[in-house]
Amino acid sequence: METRKDLFEDLKNRLSELSHLGSAVALLHWDQEVYMPKKGAAFRAKTISNLVGIFHEKFISAEFEKLLKKIAKLEKDKKLNENERVIFSETWRQFSREKKLPAEFVKELAETCSNAQSVWAEARKKSDFNLFVPYLKKIVELKRREAQLIGFKDSPYDALLDEYEPQMTSQEISIIFFELREFLVGIIGKIKKSKIKINPKALYGEFSLEKQKKLNQFVSSKMGFNFDCGRMDISTHPFETSFNPEDVRITTRYRKEDLFYSLSSVIHETGHALYEQGLLSENFGSPLGEAISHGIHESQSRIWEKIVGQNLNFWKYFYPKLKKEFPKPFSDINLEEFYKNINYVKPTLIRTESDEVTYNLHIILRFEIEKDLIEGTIEVEDLPKIWNSKMKEYLGVTVPNDANGVLQDVHWSGGSFGYFPTYTLGNLYSAQIFDAAKKSILNLEKEFAAGKFEHFRQWLRNNIHIHGKTYSANGLIMEITGEELSSKYFVNYIANKYKQIYEL
Amino acid sequence: METRKDLFEDLKNRLSELSHLGSAVALLHWDQEVYMPKKGAAFRAKTISNLVGIFHEKFISAEFEKLLKKIAKLEKDKKLNENERVIFSETWRQFSREKKLPAEFVKELAETCSNAQSVWAEARKKSDFNLFVPYLKKIVELKRREAQLIGFKDSPYDALLDEYEPQMTSQEISIIFFELREFLVGIIGKIKKSKIKINPKALYGEFSLEKQKKLNQFVSSKMGFNFDCGRMDISTHPFETSFNPEDVRITTRYRKEDLFYSLSSVIHETGHALYEQGLLSENFGSPLGEAISHGIHESQSRIWEKIVGQNLNFWKYFYPKLKKEFPKPFSDINLEEFYKNINYVKPTLIRTESDEVTYNLHIILRFEIEKDLIEGTIEVEDLPKIWNSKMKEYLGVTVPNDANGVLQDVHWSGGSFGYFPTYTLGNLYSAQIFDAAKKSILNLEKEFAAGKFEHFRQWLRNNIHIHGKTYSANGLIMEITGEELSSKYFVNYIANKYKQIYEL
Repeated sequence: METRKDLFEDLKNRLSELSHLGSAVALLHWDQEVYMPKKGAAFRAKTISNLVGIFHEKFISAEFEKLLKKIAKLEKDKKLNENERVIFSETWRQFSREKKLPAEFVKELAETCSNAQSVWAEARKKSDFNLFVPYLKKIVELKRREAQLIGFKDSPYDALLDEYEPQMTSQEISIIFFELREFLVGIIGKIKKSKIKINPKALYGEFSLEKQKKLNQFVSSKMGFNFDCGRMDISTHPFETSFNPEDVRITTRYRKEDLFYSLSSVIHETGHALYEQGLLSENFGSPLGEAISHGIHESQSRIWEKIVGQNLNFWKYFYPKLKKEFPKPFSDINLEEFYKNINYVKPTLIRTESDEVTYNLHIILRFEIEKDLIEGTIEVEDLPKIWNSKMKEYLGVTVPNDANGVLQDVHWSGGSFGYFPTYTLGNLYSAQIFDAAKKSILNLEKEFAAGKFEHFRQWLRNNIHIHGKTYSANGLIMEITGEELSSKYFVNYIANKYKQIYEL
Repeated sequence: METRKDLFEDLKNRLSELSHLGSAVALLHWDQEVYMPKKGAAFRAKTISNLVGIFHEKFISAEFEKLLKKIAKLEKDKKLNENERVIFSETWRQFSREKKLPAEFVKELAETCSNAQSVWAEARKKSDFNLFVPYLKKIVELKRREAQLIGFKDSPYDALLDEYEPQMTSQEISIIFFELREFLVGIIGKIKKSKIKINPKALYGEFSLEKQKKLNQFVSSKMGFNFDCGRMDISTHPFETSFNPEDVRITTRYRKEDLFYSLSSVIHETGHALYEQGLLSENFGSPLGEAISHGIHESQSRIWEKIVGQNLNFWKYFYPKLKKEFPKPFSDINLEEFYKNINYVKPTLIRTESDEVTYNLHIILRFEIEKDLIEGTIEVEDLPKIWNSKMKEYLGVTVPNDANGVLQDVHWSGGSFGYFPTYTLGNLYSAQIFDAAKKSILNLEKEFAAGKFEHFRQWLRNNIHIHGKTYSANGLIMEITGEELSSKYFVNYIANKYKQIYEL
């Protein structure tokens, strides 16, 4: 009879093998976006799907199930210690998800999404939602089926949400988002009426890519990104990926006239990267060495990008350096003016181009729509109408065409229903976490002004990163802040900041 | 009962899955040499060994064996067509090799070599062979055991050689190399006594890396390298790697003062790359889509690097361009002088820095030593003495220390016994193949002089690349040249070329 130690040794080896397969897949994706020659795409897709297939085959193998069932018995008999319990329960959660989805279903979904993505791209190009309708209908149908196969208590949407934000429910989100929506619609109305007029293009100039790259590296290093354990490259869409805590990579892209186009994405991705570099190497291959959820991950990128990176104190340190490197245009702009410029608020059509005040309304709109779609209270054909009317209602914006409306995001064509709310959850987590950090670290913002980010980064690491999946998202927030997630910290943060900027 | 078609469909899918795993491993290696951050090494080694482990597990699985045995029966009953026979017999050859090596043996060898490589690096640094002795003894012992496990007819060395140059025997090589050695020792003696004195440093200058890179890309493209299906990057040691025919990558390195340091490696690696880009995409995952052997692969790099790339006609086309790009120093050097300079011959200590005349004596020396080591007629402790005495005898060179002698190459510390002779086989194949190409393509060298390489590249592709492993190395040479491999073409090539250059 195997001992508990034997069983966990076996589990550890199997999980580690799976994680190394995952690292290889991550490298294949990274290379595809960054360096792969253009004709390599067709084979690359097959190489990735082969490795994903091997991962799946190993993960749901009979041997693996047998092992997990033996450990499940120990768990039931309360014989596991705390770490073992975390490792087992997270593995079991993922294993049960995968087991519930028949291989043919997974294949059908993957193929449908694969076809849908090129049709979506075409539909967006032609701004013709009807082109996309039959494909999106098929995907929604499959995702509804997926929810049935996975199982749920209240809403089928919860079964999908669980993939990205485990243990969160759509009911909790609905309550929080409702309050947030009311607040945001209100403050945006006030900002629109403010006498303060900001011209963000005042910050435009001609910035050589070489110098921009150096600035990015300087800021990222200052934040704590370890370039001995990571890289920064160029890709069409910025992203962060991690093969293990000792090889974490970020990407960005450049515009000659706008250095914040690149820099703000670098700060964002560095926030993600610090989470991954902050995991413990010795926990690689175990849930103890993995980030908690998409929402918590996003909190780490947004806390740096927005709360820190658009903070006046942050720029007290960096702005003189910026002025020195780029006298044109910055020598003519004082710090306060600069600060207002980078925090310019304006409702726009496109989510990815929106500021931190309007951003969450883009997300709330998508959450409401996708929840209704999965629950079956609306249908695919209705989307443009609903989209456009919500855009008008929440942001006061008139959508001129579907390309700049319902067709703008890739998520649905890839079957990622339940992903969108994690963006806003990330923003809410970030404000609540930052409030706790400020209470815990003396003179935190003064440290920023002196270019000291070490305490803050270490605080995030010690309180969040090193724990891996020891806590659930909610458990972590309780642990750090003593309360459940609430929108009030984010609301206060936005209210105070923009009251000052727009003299509301 | 499965039909022949079913069995081959199953085999095709399994081989394709293995090949995709191989592509992932190749990317992990490429990235390690080219872009991986320095601290990523430890995890990377584990990720690679995990994927290699999965490859091995799948390759020698009971299901795979069962399938191969069913096909073996068809083969025995002569029911396979030509392509099926090739696919089966090559797969069976590799399968049997792997099956014969017990898992513990493979693991012990891998660990021994892994440890030995850092000790070798240290020993080379300190120029202290004794440090390396216990490790090399252990490796030799394991390789002798490997030969016993694999089995052989005449020499245990043949069992190891078979991994790199299937179906070749050490007896055949010994006969060919003996003749070659006699010839080379003779002609080198004559070159030493020649009145023609060449100063290769006349070609030194100051060449910006950016301009060198452009030159490399220009030459590589002219040769036919398709940059839509490949890349060129920088690494410490140049290499070529291929993930599939649509993603083939080469690397080089640069010296500011010497553009041939980079360019000649680019021509060499492009030769390898053209072989890989010349395989048929539809044969990916099958022996029909794989290169024949290390020797044939090397023939493709050396035919371009040496026979073409150091040919007067090649430079009739490129030299005016070189003069235009780099007037200093080339405007003062005429083509004939330039041609003699790039073909400068001088016996040196280091294999990788040697010219095409002396190079093969470095290889012959290594072949003789490693064959004797594996056969047990000499022992590890004797190596420096034997090495130094052969260097004196063949090249007239006195070895001052082991770092520049027996410790210079990485191969033995990695357990690669049987690899070295493929370098010289490549040179011999290349001369024999080039002779056939010249007979087949009208005015071939005039085409080079006009910057036309398309006919030559297509000839190589049609006669070699697209066939994959359809022929054995010897079968291919018979098919192309109508004779078995012989040193006479190489001997004639060298004799004619250097008679003219050194006025012998």
